[in-house]
Amino acid sequence: MTVRLAQIVEALGGELVGDPRTPVSRLASLASAGPEALSFAVSARYEAALRASAAGVLLVPPALREAAAPQAALIVDPHPYLYYARLTQWWRERERASQPMPTVHPSAVVDPSATLGPGVSIGPFAVIEAGASIGEGAVVGAHTVVERSAEVGPRTRLAPRVVLGAGCRMGARGVVHSGVVIGADGFGFAPLEGTWVKIEQLGAVRIGDDVEIGANCTIDRGALDDTVIEDGVKLDNLIHIAHNVHIGAYTAMAGCAAVAGSARIGRGCTIGGDAKILGHLTLADGVHISACSVVTRSITQPGTYSGFFPIDSHAEWEKNAASLRSLHKLRERVRALEIELKNKT
Amino acid sequence: MTVRLAQIVEALGGELVGDPRTPVSRLASLASAGPEALSFAVSARYEAALRASAAGVLLVPPALREAAAPQAALIVDPHPYLYYARLTQWWRERERASQPMPTVHPSAVVDPSATLGPGVSIGPFAVIEAGASIGEGAVVGAHTVVERSAEVGPRTRLAPRVVLGAGCRMGARGVVHSGVVIGADGFGFAPLEGTWVKIEQLGAVRIGDDVEIGANCTIDRGALDDTVIEDGVKLDNLIHIAHNVHIGAYTAMAGCAAVAGSARIGRGCTIGGDAKILGHLTLADGVHISACSVVTRSITQPGTYSGFFPIDSHAEWEKNAASLRSLHKLRERVRALEIELKNKT
Amino acid sequence: MTVRLAQIVEALGGELVGDPRTPVSRLASLASAGPEALSFAVSARYEAALRASAAGVLLVPPALREAAAPQAALIVDPHPYLYYARLTQWWRERERASQPMPTVHPSAVVDPSATLGPGVSIGPFAVIEAGASIGEGAVVGAHTVVERSAEVGPRTRLAPRVVLGAGCRMGARGVVHSGVVIGADGFGFAPLEGTWVKIEQLGAVRIGDDVEIGANCTIDRGALDDTVIEDGVKLDNLIHIAHNVHIGAYTAMAGCAAVAGSARIGRGCTIGGDAKILGHLTLADGVHISACSVVTRSITQPGTYSGFFPIDSHAEWEKNAASLRSLHKLRERVRALEIELKNKT
Repeated sequence: MTVRLAQIVEALGGELVGDPRTPVSRLASLASAGPEALSFAVSARYEAALRASAAGVLLVPPALREAAAPQAALIVDPHPYLYYARLTQWWRERERASQPMPTVHPSAVVDPSATLGPGVSIGPFAVIEAGASIGEGAVVGAHTVVERSAEVGPRTRLAPRVVLGAGCRMGARGVVHSGVVIGADGFGFAPLEGTWVKIEQLGAVRIGDDVEIGANCTIDRGALDDTVIEDGVKLDNLIHIAHNVHIGAYTAMAGCAAVAGSARIGRGCTIGGDAKILGHLTLADGVHISACSVVTRSITQPGTYSGFFPIDSHAEWEKNAASLRSLHKLRERVRALEIELKNKT
Repeated sequence: MTVRLAQIVEALGGELVGDPRTPVSRLASLASAGPEALSFAVSARYEAALRASAAGVLLVPPALREAAAPQAALIVDPHPYLYYARLTQWWRERERASQPMPTVHPSAVVDPSATLGPGVSIGPFAVIEAGASIGEGAVVGAHTVVERSAEVGPRTRLAPRVVLGAGCRMGARGVVHSGVVIGADGFGFAPLEGTWVKIEQLGAVRIGDDVEIGANCTIDRGALDDTVIEDGVKLDNLIHIAHNVHIGAYTAMAGCAAVAGSARIGRGCTIGGDAKILGHLTLADGVHISACSVVTRSITQPGTYSGFFPIDSHAEWEKNAASLRSLHKLRERVRALEIELKNKT
Repeated sequence: MTVRLAQIVEALGGELVGDPRTPVSRLASLASAGPEALSFAVSARYEAALRASAAGVLLVPPALREAAAPQAALIVDPHPYLYYARLTQWWRERERASQPMPTVHPSAVVDPSATLGPGVSIGPFAVIEAGASIGEGAVVGAHTVVERSAEVGPRTRLAPRVVLGAGCRMGARGVVHSGVVIGADGFGFAPLEGTWVKIEQLGAVRIGDDVEIGANCTIDRGALDDTVIEDGVKLDNLIHIAHNVHIGAYTAMAGCAAVAGSARIGRGCTIGGDAKILGHLTLADGVHISACSVVTRSITQPGTYSGFFPIDSHAEWEKNAASLRSLHKLRERVRALEIELKNKT
């Protein structure tokens, strides 16, 4: 796909400096861009990399205009990172427009009682069960299963090999990547004389609009009430959301994070990769958890919270870990020294 | 689905207080229940929530009978949590009974040498390979693959999109959720001059009866002998069980836990979410590992074991983590102070 | 399958001691082997287990020849572990040779513009999209999706239920286990007034030759440039590789490890299970990270690095964790004691 620089600026704005007919056939990083590519720098910090770049078009903030102008055609915009995000969307949309028209693949199994909106695309071997509904312009990938009475909102894209469980709801304009399982049973058992009696999970999963869910995530259905994910939440890969969790709007979680049952996370939080939230806790709006930290108590104040063991050479770590195992005794020894010294005075 | 209160008590026992014809059309938590719903309270701790509930039917222990009687029809039972578990099962069974009769979907690929018991249900696009056997009343979901000579026990339910590898065995009355991979190769390589020579994994996976396996778990086949999961084990989502692991009966593991190769876990253990058991270790029966703890040595005594960094504000954590990196030196300084003070005395 | 001992030695070398016609019908561990089985011991450490074994054939190093000879036929080789690895490969190859000839299953959906090499095997319900290419002798499992313009190298095996995303490339002689998702979107968003603007991920994933990827791993496509995995890399199960990561040749990572965006890992590294590498870091060649450690800074020197909380009884851990939360204050108290004592002298 090749476009002219002028087409980009016409669609997305910004100031064009140089030849509007400059062709752009891909977007690239400063280091890998050639004359056929558009690249970008968000701040003066990237000036050296920018000067070394062979990009044919550069997207820069006003502060880099002078540095960049001699070597390439420019788009000058006060928010180049945001401009870049929108440019990637525009680019992807154009690529998609060149692909075949949406259609229901003849191999898909669609129950006659399912509702398909106009312009939906249903991939090979997809299964749409009884009473399910697929909103206008939604995409259901190959091998994806939309179970009984589940709902997919307008323009949402389910990648190949997703399961949306019975009665679960995915909102509009969402993206669900491959391998995601929405609506498996929450982990609930009543103990009985050393064995476990299953508690059937009768709730569902309700997911808002503009939500993205990364590959191989699992979001369990609620025990009685629903598991809820509000609008604009973004989940990276391999995240586990247990039953009856509630995640507030626009919260983002990085890869391998997990939230145990009935925890409630506020709006606008960020949860670092591999961070874990234990069950039944509440996190306020605007809480930021560092990667690999374990949240064991509710957090009522916004702010950044951390807790993981610092890495070191194995030999140093081993000595410190050994000392750590008797830390409370060390504390007592210091207390004893303080008292002894005080008594001497 | 709507039932009468009397039907529930007839099926599951307990004492009925109030109108036996009271209709119940769903089970719900105290907070979300309306007059059409049955809810429950397990102990006096929930008395306030119980009084605020609009539930039409309440399941309570004898101690809450008086508090509950004025506001709803009752089921009184000494073990309300266990009663609730069984009620969810009864409810789900009735829902299932209203669904279409079990059948082999015409799109499924079933090898002529495979054995299907009576009353099995095989979903769209399922693949049952040569020599596999599916027990009486078992359910194989859409897109699930049962490879050569694998066995599925009677009344076991494989959700959509499960892989049961060649020669692997899943027992009776089990539940396997979507995305589970049973019988992928264990991670085994012999080092050779900076490269890795694959050790083909020739064992299988043997899983007992009444086992539940959560979404996107992976259970690898053994190198030579089998990986073994005994009866009644319950695994939450995204759990990794490496080759040649042995998990004792009725042990339960929460989400994102992992067990490295050849580890042996006893009966009746609980492994918290994200806890990790390193390879070749042995855990006794009745060992409980806290969430997010790393087990680096065998544990011979029952009890609860923990090990994770406590969370704190980022600023506090940073100071403590910095001190931790020289903890063994701090210990030496305390020792030096002790000696010096002793010498002065 | 049963072979004669002489066939093994003819194919793989080593010295045969005893009856060359001894039948071998399976490979087994010392403890579980019967007279029909071949087992092995890599060093004198296993002499007691070897003496207790009922194996009909034993693979041993020269140092164990005398101990082993009285009880079984032998293969004597200076590198028995490597021999064993190759024997498992030979064994598996013979098993495969007895299976049906490779073929394209009639239910597979193969785009007419896709290229299939000679001898490829395409399983039931596999989907090969436009412009994709499958190399000579490659295997595409049931339900596996090879998206637009993706490439699978010669003799690579994709298990059932793999997704290889559009434009991504898997090299030759690789193994990809079930549930793997290669080429889902990297996790990239530009913040805008409390919401997130998606950055479409326009790069791909390039994977070298002889790479193995465990069940349910996820490897995201790059934002602009590609995510790169070099030759001979081995990944265990449930590993997350974020966008624009670069992993050097022959590096091995154990289960549940994760690498955040744009990190660069050297050649010949080993990353322990559940270890996490934060974003934008660089690890030198030959770095070894212990299981469950969190790498928060670049590592420029080869060596072994660790960082996780030591496990203990819950009661001990609790006391130490409490002390840890005021460790920097303890350090200050020791400093104060040191000064006070010095002043007294």
